[in-house]
Amino acid sequence: MHIKIVNPNTTRAMTDKIGDCARSVAGPGTLVEAVSPQMGPASIESHYDEALSVPGLLEEIARGEEAGVDGYVIACFGDPGLDAARELASGPVLGIAEAAMHTASFLGRGFSVVTTLGRTRGRAWELAERYGMQRFCLGVHACEIAVLDLDRDPDAVKVITEACRVALDRDGSDAIVLGCAGMADLCAVISAELGVPVVDGVAAATLMVQSLVTLGLRTGARGEFAAPLPKKYTGLLEGFGR
Amino acid sequence: MHIKIVNPNTTRAMTDKIGDCARSVAGPGTLVEAVSPQMGPASIESHYDEALSVPGLLEEIARGEEAGVDGYVIACFGDPGLDAARELASGPVLGIAEAAMHTASFLGRGFSVVTTLGRTRGRAWELAERYGMQRFCLGVHACEIAVLDLDRDPDAVKVITEACRVALDRDGSDAIVLGCAGMADLCAVISAELGVPVVDGVAAATLMVQSLVTLGLRTGARGEFAAPLPKKYTGLLEGFGR
Amino acid sequence: MHIKIVNPNTTRAMTDKIGDCARSVAGPGTLVEAVSPQMGPASIESHYDEALSVPGLLEEIARGEEAGVDGYVIACFGDPGLDAARELASGPVLGIAEAAMHTASFLGRGFSVVTTLGRTRGRAWELAERYGMQRFCLGVHACEIAVLDLDRDPDAVKVITEACRVALDRDGSDAIVLGCAGMADLCAVISAELGVPVVDGVAAATLMVQSLVTLGLRTGARGEFAAPLPKKYTGLLEGFGR
Amino acid sequence: MHIKIVNPNTTRAMTDKIGDCARSVAGPGTLVEAVSPQMGPASIESHYDEALSVPGLLEEIARGEEAGVDGYVIACFGDPGLDAARELASGPVLGIAEAAMHTASFLGRGFSVVTTLGRTRGRAWELAERYGMQRFCLGVHACEIAVLDLDRDPDAVKVITEACRVALDRDGSDAIVLGCAGMADLCAVISAELGVPVVDGVAAATLMVQSLVTLGLRTGARGEFAAPLPKKYTGLLEGFGR
Amino acid sequence: MHIKIVNPNTTRAMTDKIGDCARSVAGPGTLVEAVSPQMGPASIESHYDEALSVPGLLEEIARGEEAGVDGYVIACFGDPGLDAARELASGPVLGIAEAAMHTASFLGRGFSVVTTLGRTRGRAWELAERYGMQRFCLGVHACEIAVLDLDRDPDAVKVITEACRVALDRDGSDAIVLGCAGMADLCAVISAELGVPVVDGVAAATLMVQSLVTLGLRTGARGEFAAPLPKKYTGLLEGFGR
Amino acid sequence: MHIKIVNPNTTRAMTDKIGDCARSVAGPGTLVEAVSPQMGPASIESHYDEALSVPGLLEEIARGEEAGVDGYVIACFGDPGLDAARELASGPVLGIAEAAMHTASFLGRGFSVVTTLGRTRGRAWELAERYGMQRFCLGVHACEIAVLDLDRDPDAVKVITEACRVALDRDGSDAIVLGCAGMADLCAVISAELGVPVVDGVAAATLMVQSLVTLGLRTGARGEFAAPLPKKYTGLLEGFGR
Repeated sequence: MHIKIVNPNTTRAMTDKIGDCARSVAGPGTLVEAVSPQMGPASIESHYDEALSVPGLLEEIARGEEAGVDGYVIACFGDPGLDAARELASGPVLGIAEAAMHTASFLGRGFSVVTTLGRTRGRAWELAERYGMQRFCLGVHACEIAVLDLDRDPDAVKVITEACRVALDRDGSDAIVLGCAGMADLCAVISAELGVPVVDGVAAATLMVQSLVTLGLRTGARGEFAAPLPKKYTGLLEGFGR
Repeated sequence: MHIKIVNPNTTRAMTDKIGDCARSVAGPGTLVEAVSPQMGPASIESHYDEALSVPGLLEEIARGEEAGVDGYVIACFGDPGLDAARELASGPVLGIAEAAMHTASFLGRGFSVVTTLGRTRGRAWELAERYGMQRFCLGVHACEIAVLDLDRDPDAVKVITEACRVALDRDGSDAIVLGCAGMADLCAVISAELGVPVVDGVAAATLMVQSLVTLGLRTGARGEFAAPLPKKYTGLLEGFGR
Repeated sequence: MHIKIVNPNTTRAMTDKIGDCARSVAGPGTLVEAVSPQMGPASIESHYDEALSVPGLLEEIARGEEAGVDGYVIACFGDPGLDAARELASGPVLGIAEAAMHTASFLGRGFSVVTTLGRTRGRAWELAERYGMQRFCLGVHACEIAVLDLDRDPDAVKVITEACRVALDRDGSDAIVLGCAGMADLCAVISAELGVPVVDGVAAATLMVQSLVTLGLRTGARGEFAAPLPKKYTGLLEGFGR
Repeated sequence: MHIKIVNPNTTRAMTDKIGDCARSVAGPGTLVEAVSPQMGPASIESHYDEALSVPGLLEEIARGEEAGVDGYVIACFGDPGLDAARELASGPVLGIAEAAMHTASFLGRGFSVVTTLGRTRGRAWELAERYGMQRFCLGVHACEIAVLDLDRDPDAVKVITEACRVALDRDGSDAIVLGCAGMADLCAVISAELGVPVVDGVAAATLMVQSLVTLGLRTGARGEFAAPLPKKYTGLLEGFGR
Repeated sequence: MHIKIVNPNTTRAMTDKIGDCARSVAGPGTLVEAVSPQMGPASIESHYDEALSVPGLLEEIARGEEAGVDGYVIACFGDPGLDAARELASGPVLGIAEAAMHTASFLGRGFSVVTTLGRTRGRAWELAERYGMQRFCLGVHACEIAVLDLDRDPDAVKVITEACRVALDRDGSDAIVLGCAGMADLCAVISAELGVPVVDGVAAATLMVQSLVTLGLRTGARGEFAAPLPKKYTGLLEGFGR
Repeated sequence: MHIKIVNPNTTRAMTDKIGDCARSVAGPGTLVEAVSPQMGPASIESHYDEALSVPGLLEEIARGEEAGVDGYVIACFGDPGLDAARELASGPVLGIAEAAMHTASFLGRGFSVVTTLGRTRGRAWELAERYGMQRFCLGVHACEIAVLDLDRDPDAVKVITEACRVALDRDGSDAIVLGCAGMADLCAVISAELGVPVVDGVAAATLMVQSLVTLGLRTGARGEFAAPLPKKYTGLLEGFGR
């Protein structure tokens, strides 16, 4: 089984970390490929960044189709381009916010999200609603560390852990969802420190896609998610989608 | 990894089928055990049946804890006793309606449920709401075949497939969810006939529990889902829960 | 008119108090019978306790049917077994959370619930949603006194009254709902102290059932709430429900 | 106990029928007074009619306060002026749509409303939402008989019964709510014909107000529903409300 | 184009201010007329006040119809009589809460309402829900200055500005909605002070009505909002509505 | 005042029609500029098309900022890139679905959307929910004419009008919303034929933006919608957004 994980930003170090986290949970017969697109923002911290990440992401999906990929993960907590990717892919596609929130909903009455910058909280709430997870999402909290500082800031783990602790107390939640692919390696340490389940979307999405492929399931294509109609595209992905 | 699947009714033939379906998707290192409880109804088709299935189900969870089980599946589409089981178990617990609905939500804008008797539809809607899946659940349809007739009625597959076809057309849905553990073996044939993804909760729940165990996740136990307080129980499960 | 109140725990002193509260409001022609089941937990403070209280409760409903009871009250704030009881009973059945929340909704924009242990709050919210009362339920607050300590703890009234005061201030609510049958005798004193309406579900449910019987109304039995189908039950209530 | 029922239209024959229905269910110690206001429309079939019925209705509440009335029923299915009446009255106030919908919610998964003219359906849905009863209200159906024709049209009972039958089938509902005070005398005959519970709001509201008075409960007056502030009113109810 | 603004209270000074604010934004070809009704309360601070303002308001709509008015604004933040006015008017009708909330929803993820007395907050929430604006309305805050004191209290601007500042911080909102027609002249100063968009409903509604008239749009009259049926009205607006 | 309308597809004929419709309603002092982006799809009929239209759209917003544009309209019924555009623009931005749905909500209890291909209905529902307009949106109907065939198909007006008629009957709605910028010129003829208000989003959005600019309002920029942070963008809009 071949699962392709697209980190929609162009920062390769982050893509490598994401790939490692995914591989550490994937089954023995699963090949995990992690890539960044060739165009897009260095990190995603606004609706603008998200919008500009999507064409490059879709290009990677289109390349994956040519390579016979079985399923995809979109590894940014804003789940950019998810619906478009589902139209394009013949196998299942999951976003990491989607996977993390669903997974956390199995662990109790509700979870708290701890994310990077405060300005991204609106998108997290929007996704929670879209996925039906709003009733489980008891709070979205920002640690106010920018995405690319997660690895540079020596206090990052401490600050994020503290934000998780505050979130648990304020929200009375049963679990934590980490709200950025760049936090994928922090689950174990925070869970050990706080004694609650901590969910990373990269690992969760990888296993969910693996499960969907095992079950022989893919996006239903009889209506909204049929392949895009052939038409003229100017200046972007002209070679695909015809 | 040891996953225990409890079919909360006392019909062993159905339990065997459920076990087979689960084993056919579980990973190589996963031991799947499928059991029926020692007390309860022969099939579950009402709130009354469901209520009477729960003590026997909980007894099996308690036994599973003594045996070091890693995670549990409740294999009835009413997901009876799910919250109580989560208090009791040290590993994750999923219901098959829960697993099937979440899984189907990854496959498009919405799904249709096709279940057994019409009187169980209310419970399916209730669960859809509880899991946040109401926005994806576009219809709950009954084939009006009783649970234990699923295997006896020679027309069952045809009738169920036809109910799925009607559901897809009426609801404009992208996928089908089969609303009874007793239909666990019908996914492939109906999917092939109708050309849409068809989700069985037994297989879906088995893989979700397997994923949760792989991720090291279990029900959060700092609040509502802490272990039950020790107290006197009269006449039911007196030996457990102290 | 014969109304049977089932306290689903096995603590007789609490059952007696419940019966007294119900009798103090029932009409002159109404016979109130209050019972505990023969099996079940000594108190109900978890999903597990609730689940184990249901078979004994249903047995009391079945006995009530043989005795010609006109209507039933389930006297635990988790309203355990309500749907199953409705299938079994020929007359109306109300839960005390149901009755209390509906009653409080007639008294203003919103109410606060004050209950026993914090771990039961999730269930109260769940019921509020189920009954459509979520829009009126502005908060669920715990006094952290265990059910059986309500009568033993000399400070109980003071602690509960204080929790009500805090709830009113935080929630800006118009009324209080007491979230445990064991608080049924506290309405008057708390209402006098705080100057707001305080609703006890036992009294409220008794009058609602009395009203339904007077109106000639019972659970509609043409679909979901028809009598359970005859089938084999093993080890639990074998003599009933056939 | 003195309960005052205000039929907010000026048609005395309808008021008399309403009073009779209420008296037939009220307890032995309850005095039921039914009145029409001195100003307002002959019947209520639009938002305009409803708005013009409210000052006369409030005048009757104000008069009731002077006469020591214990509780009030607003006997029009649009529940006009309910919030204003609650500010004015020292005892509880219920609308008949409110009482009927809550009552019907105790009888199953959902009910259908059968009302007079189609143009009033929007208001019924609005009230269902306001009371939290939207999840139980599965359909609002019009028999297209104007309010004052309910008594004149010889086919009225047949037409309404047929509308109820259609409603039950389409909605899959467990009970019927009659959507006009002018139908208060039809419950028994329709219930007998169709074999389902049929709820009239006049009788239901009378018993709910009687219950609230018995329980010593009234509208909470610490916030939104405190008595109106004294101020100058020009041209309407100048003598009251100061 | 002739737009009529009805301030539903009888305080002419407030009506004059409202007219000035509306005129300052209306287009060059738009005639703005601002009136108070001949009957009703001096200010509107309760459901009772609101109810008593409606007949006088409707009388002004009826007069406007005779004068060929193109569209109407109801200039009280409770939007009293909106549905009735829509039945009566041949052109569009907007309430200022309606216009302000919709306008604010275009400016970000959510807004805070700052209103006069705390007892009016429930109505603001009710309207937010009715208009679908509940998801944007992040808080309703009271400055506890009575309507007629807005012009008399020398600290009013300071107190309201401070309430806005607190609201922004608590709610994390993107914009402020001023919750009283009597605050119509405060937008600019508060916006300048706090650096966020501040919406006044009077100006917003005037432009929305102007836009609707320009677009040739009015209330749909094929169902619920058709003209009221001719019938007898006693004691109120007898000359109209026949 | 300078309003820039971006038709996010690359079909100039459609852009010209859109510009004409907007100019026909704009005020005398308003300059309306209508453009297509330099990259993107020829028409937008899928999530994929929508995603690929956004970078070109954002480029036009960025150019508009340099040119001192006061406000923007996004003229595709999927409202692509709306949030990103709001971050980028110093003036207000509206989508035509947003404007049309809000406008239609002022005209009655509910509206029906009539759109092009059935596969776009999911997006329309998604937007209705996002804008809080779901409660007013009673149905989304497809005429199954592709966007670029709206002008080519000689039967288009007839087919769309018929779809509107069916929608009104099925949904019981008060108004029609036309679900494609390419239908902007059809309002008058359909409204005349069917006798109901018909809303085109292009005209509605133009007037709403004009109103917002008149009111001095723009997107709140203190949180989620602040300008995008400066960072490296590769391969797309590299010259902007720094």
